Amino acid sequence: MTKQNTQVCLAARPAGLPKDSDWEIHRVPLPQVESDQFVAEVLYVSLDPAMRGWMNDARSYIEPVQIGEVMRAGGIARIRESKLSGFDVGEHIFCMSGVQQFCVSDGSGVQKVDPQIAPLPTFLGVLGMTGLTAYFGMLEVAGIETGETVVVSGAAGAVGSVAGQIARIHDCRVVGIAGGKQKCDYLVKELGFDAAIDYKGENLGKALRRHCPKGIDVFFDNVGGETLNTALPLLRMHGRVAICGAISQYNNTGPVAGPSNYLSLLVSRARMEGFIVFDYADRYPEAIAAMGAWLAAGKLKSKEQIEDGIENFPAVLLKLFEGGNFGKLILRNSDAF
Amino acid sequence: MTKQNTQVCLAARPAGLPKDSDWEIHRVPLPQVESDQFVAEVLYVSLDPAMRGWMNDARSYIEPVQIGEVMRAGGIARIRESKLSGFDVGEHIFCMSGVQQFCVSDGSGVQKVDPQIAPLPTFLGVLGMTGLTAYFGMLEVAGIETGETVVVSGAAGAVGSVAGQIARIHDCRVVGIAGGKQKCDYLVKELGFDAAIDYKGENLGKALRRHCPKGIDVFFDNVGGETLNTALPLLRMHGRVAICGAISQYNNTGPVAGPSNYLSLLVSRARMEGFIVFDYADRYPEAIAAMGAWLAAGKLKSKEQIEDGIENFPAVLLKLFEGGNFGKLILRNSDAF
Repeated sequence: MTKQNTQVCLAARPAGLPKDSDWEIHRVPLPQVESDQFVAEVLYVSLDPAMRGWMNDARSYIEPVQIGEVMRAGGIARIRESKLSGFDVGEHIFCMSGVQQFCVSDGSGVQKVDPQIAPLPTFLGVLGMTGLTAYFGMLEVAGIETGETVVVSGAAGAVGSVAGQIARIHDCRVVGIAGGKQKCDYLVKELGFDAAIDYKGENLGKALRRHCPKGIDVFFDNVGGETLNTALPLLRMHGRVAICGAISQYNNTGPVAGPSNYLSLLVSRARMEGFIVFDYADRYPEAIAAMGAWLAAGKLKSKEQIEDGIENFPAVLLKLFEGGNFGKLILRNSDAF
Repeated sequence: MTKQNTQVCLAARPAGLPKDSDWEIHRVPLPQVESDQFVAEVLYVSLDPAMRGWMNDARSYIEPVQIGEVMRAGGIARIRESKLSGFDVGEHIFCMSGVQQFCVSDGSGVQKVDPQIAPLPTFLGVLGMTGLTAYFGMLEVAGIETGETVVVSGAAGAVGSVAGQIARIHDCRVVGIAGGKQKCDYLVKELGFDAAIDYKGENLGKALRRHCPKGIDVFFDNVGGETLNTALPLLRMHGRVAICGAISQYNNTGPVAGPSNYLSLLVSRARMEGFIVFDYADRYPEAIAAMGAWLAAGKLKSKEQIEDGIENFPAVLLKLFEGGNFGKLILRNSDAF
């Protein structure tokens, strides 16, 4: 029996949370390799909140995924057949593989990964886009300094957990916001956060004031909405808000909730700045070297939640928006193992 | 008959627009000068949107005015009696005089002004706090560069008109937003703005897209609300929003309107930053020298709207919030002339 390629394709633009009917699972023949191409078998696919934005037909930092196209995703793959010099069968790569079992590439944007350095899923987490996002967001955009009070929202998520750890490594006081006791315990006991706030179990404003008695120097925001709004009045003089994402708002069917406390930026002479990790592409090697060293030294911990089956993508994606993931959410192509 | 001091005092904290009953006019005896003090006769009082914030009992960058106190205001005054060395009768000064006819001072925070350099009201406008706010906001916070597209809201106001002219002097493309044809004509024909948008007469979003075909590099915001929100999606890569004020929101009885398009900061890797001119106090001389030279060279024009009578403060203040002023709004102490 000929092997086939399972693909998850965008069937419709979702309103609110993506539904089953927004997706189509295609089973197509294995792609044929042309000259100057290779075919790789996808092993792990990265699931990210940003995917929700890619599904909208709106101006953003990247083109929307078109209806009928394979859903965009970063993945770790192993080269299976190659007619492209410099890419050999058996090598492991990171590429924008899409949510499918096999991908074809001409090598552009492909990065090789060395499974001797870290387990393959780590290259989608701490050593991947999410880790890089945390690194440049915290060190370049927020510009943390020793002794500052840093608050991270979505702190048990893939970016937030690394962002908080990087601030700890730089001797900041780090307070994480996450949902549920289990995540909060993990942040404090496993990752060394100074404090964690369970936004489901306590009043966020009161808890922030308690844990940040001097105010907030840096707010690294993955959540937006009322979380961001509650933090703004607590900014210290010359505070910085790094806008990494706004997961609370991605599935809104109405307008995004704007931060009504934005005039706190004036009171505190503070700034709020957005960023995209792609802008730092020429500095990825520097960041990966630093993070690899912290990983090796045990200063930085990696946590992935790995789910099985490319075809389960539609259901697994929803975990991101329902607080159902804990660490970096990854889909494994079970057929490849 | 003994001369008296007319004072405008805060009688109640306003909800929404200040009402007559939020003020009390007191007529008190002329203040007596003690040693190391002087008494000055206030000639001109500065009326500023920020005053509305000083009337609220809320955490801000400055203490609220207390109930019963003379309303805080900057003023130009002439020393009438002095027991303070270095301050001589007849000298002109800028100080936080309050809204009253005579003030007593120990000299702290007082700056002497030279009526040979410019007419006295100019020291409350282009050469005063509003001009300084425009200068540091545009050059330091927004950091304009030659050739950039700069949009100023509240462009016919005291800060906006200077901010736009400073951007023109630095060879930026400058688009002003103001209310009404008269103000817009003034911006283009008198002040040399490249374009002006009458927000009362046309769709702001469409007009901004027409006048800023490449997008907005710098948005200097005095208005907030829907004006700010409409501009955000038009920011260019690495755009800057300088938050100078939010006059559309100061008299809200409900929450401030948060900018629901704030995620454009992420799309455009842009930043939004608040500032207060007081932080640049050690650089005022540099700014006043630069602005004085531009004034003398005819590159910078000053426009003041001068109204008469300290006791008319409550009514004249409202012009700021109703679009009723055109240029820097100043109250003259008619009794002194």
